[in-house]
Amino acid sequence: MKLHDLTATQIVEAIADKKTTAEAVARDCLEHIEARESQVKAWHYLDPDAVIKQARAVDARASIGALHGVPVGIKDIIDTCDMPTEYGTPIHQGHRPRVDAAVVALTRRAGGLIMGKTVTTEFANRHPGKTSHPQDPARTPGGSSSGSAAAVGDHMVPLALGTQTTGSTIRPAAYCGCVGYRPTWGEIRCSGVMEAAGSLDTLGLIARSVEDIVLYKDVMMGIEPQRLSPTLMQPPRIGFCKTHFWDQCDLTTQKSLEDCAEHLARAGAKVSAVTLPAEFEQVEQAHRWVSSFEFARNRAWEIDHHYSSISQTLRDNRLKDGLACSIQTYRQSRQILARLRRSMHDVINDFDVLLVPATSGEAPLGLNATGNASHCLIWTSTHVPSMTLPLFKGPHGLPVGAQLIAARNNDRLLFEAARWVHKQFLA
Amino acid sequence: MKLHDLTATQIVEAIADKKTTAEAVARDCLEHIEARESQVKAWHYLDPDAVIKQARAVDARASIGALHGVPVGIKDIIDTCDMPTEYGTPIHQGHRPRVDAAVVALTRRAGGLIMGKTVTTEFANRHPGKTSHPQDPARTPGGSSSGSAAAVGDHMVPLALGTQTTGSTIRPAAYCGCVGYRPTWGEIRCSGVMEAAGSLDTLGLIARSVEDIVLYKDVMMGIEPQRLSPTLMQPPRIGFCKTHFWDQCDLTTQKSLEDCAEHLARAGAKVSAVTLPAEFEQVEQAHRWVSSFEFARNRAWEIDHHYSSISQTLRDNRLKDGLACSIQTYRQSRQILARLRRSMHDVINDFDVLLVPATSGEAPLGLNATGNASHCLIWTSTHVPSMTLPLFKGPHGLPVGAQLIAARNNDRLLFEAARWVHKQFLA
Repeated sequence: MKLHDLTATQIVEAIADKKTTAEAVARDCLEHIEARESQVKAWHYLDPDAVIKQARAVDARASIGALHGVPVGIKDIIDTCDMPTEYGTPIHQGHRPRVDAAVVALTRRAGGLIMGKTVTTEFANRHPGKTSHPQDPARTPGGSSSGSAAAVGDHMVPLALGTQTTGSTIRPAAYCGCVGYRPTWGEIRCSGVMEAAGSLDTLGLIARSVEDIVLYKDVMMGIEPQRLSPTLMQPPRIGFCKTHFWDQCDLTTQKSLEDCAEHLARAGAKVSAVTLPAEFEQVEQAHRWVSSFEFARNRAWEIDHHYSSISQTLRDNRLKDGLACSIQTYRQSRQILARLRRSMHDVINDFDVLLVPATSGEAPLGLNATGNASHCLIWTSTHVPSMTLPLFKGPHGLPVGAQLIAARNNDRLLFEAARWVHKQFLA
Repeated sequence: MKLHDLTATQIVEAIADKKTTAEAVARDCLEHIEARESQVKAWHYLDPDAVIKQARAVDARASIGALHGVPVGIKDIIDTCDMPTEYGTPIHQGHRPRVDAAVVALTRRAGGLIMGKTVTTEFANRHPGKTSHPQDPARTPGGSSSGSAAAVGDHMVPLALGTQTTGSTIRPAAYCGCVGYRPTWGEIRCSGVMEAAGSLDTLGLIARSVEDIVLYKDVMMGIEPQRLSPTLMQPPRIGFCKTHFWDQCDLTTQKSLEDCAEHLARAGAKVSAVTLPAEFEQVEQAHRWVSSFEFARNRAWEIDHHYSSISQTLRDNRLKDGLACSIQTYRQSRQILARLRRSMHDVINDFDVLLVPATSGEAPLGLNATGNASHCLIWTSTHVPSMTLPLFKGPHGLPVGAQLIAARNNDRLLFEAARWVHKQFLA
């Protein structure tokens, strides 16, 4: 096994055991990036010399940090004090923030190496960047955390930061065969992270194991990492939930999810079907108005000073919606989402987690769009934590994710259940 | 009446009626500032030439904006692309953001003049800046939006932006004889505003009339301003609420509030006493842990790179608390605040607004502290909108505020009720 194939947890252990160094890990990841980047194009900014310098500084530290020597990719809407941050737009070319985002500073504090800035769609919205799917350059890696998911999926780094306002972490993570996690809304501080729509935004984590997500989550919370329980949880109570977006899934994805539910039931999980109340059909419109209204206000400066440098896609969709949305529609939409949050609480109450699709299927062909994010709308809008696991393959042999959902603030339960579920497929 | 004594609404009307120009207003405010600034010290950054340039550009506009020619002070934790933003700390000396905060861009779009940056306490926390109370240089103007409140109270500008995580808008506005408004949490976008503790932070508005608050609020929402109803509302249902902080009020403040409640009842309001459930006594500790935990994460970069430049006050209080707070205490505290939000909803349900103290009394003597913020803790923590009105005078003839509180998202009702209450004292 090459160093760049290790998970974050394995890297920290190997360095603590003096089997390798941060510099050796960084060099191996950089070599792999060099070999692969011309095809994957995951990086918006990468300075190998600066990475080696960071690695040597970490190697010189007296104690082993929670992310000691772990290379991390940072989505380019998250501020870094020693690298440009350009938000996926030519408008901010050459911008270098003064201060690290809180999550970047906490990553460095734990010994993590800021590998570089990963490609984001324009302002973390729809207009795609240059990144390709690691397994098929003709396909999208998904968005908006495109580079973060592609870099982790391609084993360029074991960890990356993304964000999610609709499906911007779960969708690309699922397409690229990663474990992707969106925390409970409000859980992780967003200082220094570009706001798309504050009522919906969260950070997002992308890794190749549930264990790594657990580790990095605690680092981002600024606390001593707390490992999962030493033993697997009792088989969880799982609600298998075909939302009103189910029909948008490919038949193979539907079949994979149904087989998965059966497989987990055979393994001892208490699996039962759960149907969301009809009111959840309001989610798409309500999410659209809330996110567009807020996005358009947050981009007031760019609209007024650089409108011609904004993509046609962004102008004709999110911005047009946001500027057309009346205050009454915005308020009604916020009220709808608040009601759905309460309903979601009642729905999940009977289960440990829900099992739902992460995407409609494999990453679609074409690099001018980032795929269907509908399968994240309900969970994003109701502020519940979610995780995608790379459990299936689609008809072209590309990854397809299964998404697990827990109740608000039950992120630890989500982790325990995700580990249990993942184990049933790794065996 | 001098131009600098006009309210924002009056300025816009006067310019629309061609009775004055943005440049004339700016010049008069600048002259007043020049005369008074050596005593009040409200401004962290002020470039008169740049203001005149802005004013001329506004005078050249073809149409009249909602804040046409209105000078606005901006708290120095809110980003401005053409002025430094230093967050009240030497650590960020010389920092000039690339982009305006959303609320600054929206202010400019409406024709407002960004007059300059007003003094903030260090990182909008406790360690005070140089500002004095406009009516007594030996007294604090309150904090953390010290300069914004002093500038408006002294008629240097008719409007200013602040922020509030505990009492940072209401308290200084009350001390300085202003109308201060904290919106429902989550209502106004905070892009480009330094995050202190995201679970509690809001923008704050400071003005000299309720009408100006209503106007500026809508500008900050990025919508066409909606005036209050043409006629006063029916006398409101008012809950007179002596919280468990009541005993911290001076006797004169208690007497003023009691007289106020009687006066409003005589004017037709349905005033009744309301007692908060005992659980609200948990608010102080819960607020302390949530705000400290989040603040310490948000300042991770400054802690790791500039610890010696952080004030002793901040290190020994907020940061010490934040770094000592366990994840369990943080979570419990968040749960307590979430419960109190639900209880608050039930409490307010029977009223249009609550009437409560804004501060313990007049601005206290001494410039090394910013006064008691306890009277804002409950309302800040429960995310409800609040407004202070300059209704009383204390024993030294200095302003004392009455605070009105409405239910979450009932900001318009708060405005209507505040106008009704204010009218009973202006008559």
